[in-house]
Amino acid sequence: MTRYDLALIGFGGVNRALAELIAERGDVLEAELGFALRVVAITDLRAGSLVRTDGGGIDLAGLLAVAPGELDFSGWEGGSPEPRNEWVIREVPADIIAEATFTDPTDGEPALSHVRWAVEAGKHVCTTNKGPVALHGQALKDLARRHGVCFESEGTVMSGTPVLRTARRMFGGLSVHGFEGIMNGTSNYVLGRLESGLSFAEAVAEAQALGYAEADPTADIEGHDVQLKVVILANEVLGADLRRVDVPCTGLSALTADDVRRAAAEGLRWKLVGSATRRPDGTVDARVAPVALPAEHPLAGIAGPGNAIAFHTHPLGTVTVGGPGAGRIETAYALLSDVIAIHEHTAAGAVPGAGNAILAKAHRV
Amino acid sequence: MTRYDLALIGFGGVNRALAELIAERGDVLEAELGFALRVVAITDLRAGSLVRTDGGGIDLAGLLAVAPGELDFSGWEGGSPEPRNEWVIREVPADIIAEATFTDPTDGEPALSHVRWAVEAGKHVCTTNKGPVALHGQALKDLARRHGVCFESEGTVMSGTPVLRTARRMFGGLSVHGFEGIMNGTSNYVLGRLESGLSFAEAVAEAQALGYAEADPTADIEGHDVQLKVVILANEVLGADLRRVDVPCTGLSALTADDVRRAAAEGLRWKLVGSATRRPDGTVDARVAPVALPAEHPLAGIAGPGNAIAFHTHPLGTVTVGGPGAGRIETAYALLSDVIAIHEHTAAGAVPGAGNAILAKAHRV
Repeated sequence: MTRYDLALIGFGGVNRALAELIAERGDVLEAELGFALRVVAITDLRAGSLVRTDGGGIDLAGLLAVAPGELDFSGWEGGSPEPRNEWVIREVPADIIAEATFTDPTDGEPALSHVRWAVEAGKHVCTTNKGPVALHGQALKDLARRHGVCFESEGTVMSGTPVLRTARRMFGGLSVHGFEGIMNGTSNYVLGRLESGLSFAEAVAEAQALGYAEADPTADIEGHDVQLKVVILANEVLGADLRRVDVPCTGLSALTADDVRRAAAEGLRWKLVGSATRRPDGTVDARVAPVALPAEHPLAGIAGPGNAIAFHTHPLGTVTVGGPGAGRIETAYALLSDVIAIHEHTAAGAVPGAGNAILAKAHRV
Repeated sequence: MTRYDLALIGFGGVNRALAELIAERGDVLEAELGFALRVVAITDLRAGSLVRTDGGGIDLAGLLAVAPGELDFSGWEGGSPEPRNEWVIREVPADIIAEATFTDPTDGEPALSHVRWAVEAGKHVCTTNKGPVALHGQALKDLARRHGVCFESEGTVMSGTPVLRTARRMFGGLSVHGFEGIMNGTSNYVLGRLESGLSFAEAVAEAQALGYAEADPTADIEGHDVQLKVVILANEVLGADLRRVDVPCTGLSALTADDVRRAAAEGLRWKLVGSATRRPDGTVDARVAPVALPAEHPLAGIAGPGNAIAFHTHPLGTVTVGGPGAGRIETAYALLSDVIAIHEHTAAGAVPGAGNAILAKAHRV
């Protein structure tokens, strides 16, 4: 049985949910996937750091019995009140760094540094942080290739719904010439409630009450969240080299509730669409904007907080993948799917593009 | 460069479209996928058989210049007026048999025999025929495993839209506990036109005029086509062991146009849904029936001849994959995606479950 040792950087909702997945489903995962997972380190801004590389690693059941806000590793064996991120990432003998810190999407920090440290230390990395991938995705992939490790980031777009990996692995032999997506559940929920007759303020308040919208919903409502995802998808799927400034962004405030209801009466549905298309000259045209979609459009029926991306391919046509776009368990599953992808690369003896460097990053136990 | 030699069994719409894909996109495929394809044999009930294992194999451009109805291999070098299916499959040194004959879905023949002959001869097989997979899928998979070859059949459900392979490869670590799908474009188109005010007869006639429905639309309209797909999906994705008789099937004739319009006025959309759910005792409950879906259901917005399958997973939730469900190029792409899957298995040196038997079924050129 192969085993991977994980270090969880950031222990907010997502990595805590990953720990829950491993604790509750570890046996099923071993039986089904053929590898075991052991968490050997956790760091967190508030709780500090915890390192246990002996025996079964960190006792996840014991850890998860403590309420999130009350975790304080300083009194624990192997614990410290300091997060010690750099030391843990560089020095603790983990195979995979699961990066899920609170990160500023505009400069990508601290996740960007975490990813670099991990790769430089020869460790595989998976992250759910959009910032580093949107800002420096290609550079980080190149760095990972040079170091013979994997850099995975499925959770940056539509949480655990496998859109990046589907586009990468399921469209072999096809040309993907563009995509359109509903990639933000908050704004889609608000649009649906406007159709139902609520005012903009009422719809946003309801989304907040249901936990779909944050206290400051600007990034969701004005499309900035989608803008980052468009950059990530266009660079990954269309081979573009876009930065955020290359993606014009219009949010929902450009619409009135009347616009939405009038369109609905005509069979049209306003959606906040992030899209990109490869132009004949090979460059990529990308944008975020509200669009009034006809009923037969594959994204018109995406309801509530749902997300979906329609990939336009030749010669197959349009393939749409829909599913959850957020949620702590759903996003933690993205990290698990990244670990599975790392296992597949490692088991095949090669990281794609790494000159088939044989990897010895897993333990036989 | 690795090269695979293909024998195309049946040269109707689908395998002819595969030949077009190879002829038109072969260079792109080589550059992108890292392998070349050479067609060394074609058999067809009307045209006979053609075998060319020298040089570049069969001259596809020359072949495709002849109109479909006028192909007659008897005068060609390497040609014969007889289809000679068994001899070609067993004796011609091809690596992969692409099986796309006109096959009776109730007994699976002649495709069933073609698949068996190929596997027994140590050749990989891909097929778009539902019959053999729905009737004997597990037995054929077991046979292929014993012979160390791959048996692929993505095109049996939703043509080239990657649903079987997505369920198999993208849901690692998840429990799939059921699915619901719109898996027949003809019936979905007809339902949409009933909503628009057409009578049943008018809607069917329109579908026939547009090429969505066959002269005898019974298999599409009454759910028999979907029934086979439910068997294939349930056995593949839920590990069931269903036969066709285990899937109760109610078709569209159970509905009236008034039912459809009355529901639409209430925000409900009738869809012909094929579904399966794993019961607590591990058995699988499957059926085909018209269902009135609420607007927020992930399948409610699937319009026109579109197809989609919603997979219900734990803990990720529902993931829906939509795309074309038919079409000759779309179905031919399914065969190409099967070839890509065979290449990935072969390149990894193993067929899953084949005891890691090393395969030597590709040519280095």
